[in-house]
Amino acid sequence: MPSFRTATRALGPRTRPILSSEPLVINRRAISSYGYTQAKALVYSKYGEPRDVLSLHGHSISPVSGTNVVVRMLVAPINPADVNQIQGVYPSKPAMSTSLGTPEPTAVAGNEGVAEVISTGSGVKSLSKGDWVIMKYTSQGTWRTHMDINESKLLKIDNKEGLTPLQAGTVSVNPCTAYRMLLDSAKWGFRGDEWFIQNGANSGVGRAAIQLGKEWGFKSINVIRGREDKQEEQKLRQELLDIGATKVITEDELQGREIRDQIKEWTNGGREEVKVGLNCVGGKPATALAKFLSPGATMVTYGAMSKQPVTLPASLLIFKEISFNGFWVSKWSDRHPDQKKQTVEDVLRLTREGKFRDIPVQECTWGWGTDAGTLKEAVQGTLGGFRAGKGVFVFEES
Amino acid sequence: MPSFRTATRALGPRTRPILSSEPLVINRRAISSYGYTQAKALVYSKYGEPRDVLSLHGHSISPVSGTNVVVRMLVAPINPADVNQIQGVYPSKPAMSTSLGTPEPTAVAGNEGVAEVISTGSGVKSLSKGDWVIMKYTSQGTWRTHMDINESKLLKIDNKEGLTPLQAGTVSVNPCTAYRMLLDSAKWGFRGDEWFIQNGANSGVGRAAIQLGKEWGFKSINVIRGREDKQEEQKLRQELLDIGATKVITEDELQGREIRDQIKEWTNGGREEVKVGLNCVGGKPATALAKFLSPGATMVTYGAMSKQPVTLPASLLIFKEISFNGFWVSKWSDRHPDQKKQTVEDVLRLTREGKFRDIPVQECTWGWGTDAGTLKEAVQGTLGGFRAGKGVFVFEES
Repeated sequence: MPSFRTATRALGPRTRPILSSEPLVINRRAISSYGYTQAKALVYSKYGEPRDVLSLHGHSISPVSGTNVVVRMLVAPINPADVNQIQGVYPSKPAMSTSLGTPEPTAVAGNEGVAEVISTGSGVKSLSKGDWVIMKYTSQGTWRTHMDINESKLLKIDNKEGLTPLQAGTVSVNPCTAYRMLLDSAKWGFRGDEWFIQNGANSGVGRAAIQLGKEWGFKSINVIRGREDKQEEQKLRQELLDIGATKVITEDELQGREIRDQIKEWTNGGREEVKVGLNCVGGKPATALAKFLSPGATMVTYGAMSKQPVTLPASLLIFKEISFNGFWVSKWSDRHPDQKKQTVEDVLRLTREGKFRDIPVQECTWGWGTDAGTLKEAVQGTLGGFRAGKGVFVFEES
Repeated sequence: MPSFRTATRALGPRTRPILSSEPLVINRRAISSYGYTQAKALVYSKYGEPRDVLSLHGHSISPVSGTNVVVRMLVAPINPADVNQIQGVYPSKPAMSTSLGTPEPTAVAGNEGVAEVISTGSGVKSLSKGDWVIMKYTSQGTWRTHMDINESKLLKIDNKEGLTPLQAGTVSVNPCTAYRMLLDSAKWGFRGDEWFIQNGANSGVGRAAIQLGKEWGFKSINVIRGREDKQEEQKLRQELLDIGATKVITEDELQGREIRDQIKEWTNGGREEVKVGLNCVGGKPATALAKFLSPGATMVTYGAMSKQPVTLPASLLIFKEISFNGFWVSKWSDRHPDQKKQTVEDVLRLTREGKFRDIPVQECTWGWGTDAGTLKEAVQGTLGGFRAGKGVFVFEES
């Protein structure tokens, strides 16, 4: 029974644990008549497999004051990086504390999500009740029903009109990754004759890159893993073409003999440059991809699904002057919160205009009575590593 | 008898071939009384091993006119890239022509060197007789006694005072490579607490980097191949320390277990950043080197002595934000002739001030009577690839 622990030590001023056991609070309302907010959070105090180390911690949030706000989570994705963080294999480690009234220092899991402001301290200037907010920084812990947090750590969604919580809650990791990698890795002419090439093209980032690229006039060569079921493969190709992919090929095709002439033909004999490569696979597929970049291009690595390193012939570096960089959205986001806000708003604008479509997700409803086991299984089901099999917590109003 | 071919076709206005055979011209003076300059050049008309494809072509240069000058070569190095170019395995290919009166289109080999202006056309503004010049671009063909060339294709050495032809003639490849790679690959604070790390540290570029780094206040970790003869190894270590290396280690030490703590100690617990890595080796030594770079650093590849590709764990790219680039001095030099002039002048200033020492070279004297075989063996002796075993043609005044 790991979910509701009894606090045994002095608590901070704003939280107190729920001392009852889970079945008793199923129908308890989140906001009590005394201004206390009842909350639950998926926390962990040591690294390990989510099903082993996560517990559902109930606590109560005191009436908000100062420049803090209380928000209610609407949607919080389960990203592979969140799982890696719980496993302790992610370089970004959350701070652990007893501020939620846990007996041991814990961290709330989850990094991404959208929330609604439900109450504001008297000193709060930037936010009002009903506003939608996303996290300004990483490791703020989004897998919880409610959060008491300083306004400075949130980014307000300026215009939530026409948006679903799912759209706002999944904007800051994958779409931002695609947006910055694609836009910042080359000097683009925006003439409609420039290309990028990417592997893992059906991932969340890959699909975002296709759509953003189309919007900006970039043509794209999209590499997917071939499927044994050719009908399924054809369906996937069509899906990517439908959202704006110029060309879709399999990894086998990329490493085959005919592709060089094929790409030459597509790029008008090489006169149309392939200026950026996006790599989330590594190994041979990454080397193969790099070879189709035009001189002076950049390959950005943001994942390593094959768990193989990136291997580069020196000639690509020296004579073809290809640059190889990486992109880590957490670091970018922590370093450039203002740019994050702009990027998010721009993607949401495109979403409203119907130019940026939702990525297929698997929803896991998180109501007041949802048991810890269900939540933990949803997390465990999202595989570690960088392969997107995106699960999303969707919170029910309690 | 490949050296003196007989021309069988119409010649351009400024050249005519020497129709006599080699022994007859040994004592012929280079400048005849009619203002014609007798010249010889190592040319090739097809790619292959230098000993097979090079021939010594004698020709006569007409009195100079317009904005052209005639120069006499003083020193011309034999760089590994020159050999690769002759072999046809170098991406930069020279234009071949019959302008020197060869029966087939040929190119003059050699890319680097210093020459003295011996006569100037009436329209020449930038150069005077006696000036020292180096090549502004690559593939101008420096392995020849004399050259008729437009003034716009030469860079004047503004101040040759206190310099030897060897110093001026070897400045534009290795020292420029080290200079630009080191200086342009990081935002340096010039506070004396910044490091770079390099392999192939005893190469021409490596030694240049050590000396320039010392001048700029950069500390250096210099990786050399271990020698079976430990006395020889010790002598090499001392040589590099003498020219300004902070630390010298072998490749085995770099891949050993103690080096991490060692480097941590040297860099004051990592507080002193290792901002740039220079790699001319590739393979495992390059991966090992990359791991000691500080977050956000850049590794520049300029050679591949091991003939192995560069292999990079994705975490170095993504989480440590290391960038991997290449540097190709030919491309840089063709793209930035003005920067080349500045760089050359700065290295020569340091040379005059005794802060930049000559790299050991093997001289091959090229007099009027030197036979083709001797010259070709000097070229063949310089191994292909990127290992510097630097031979240098030193021209005798004829």
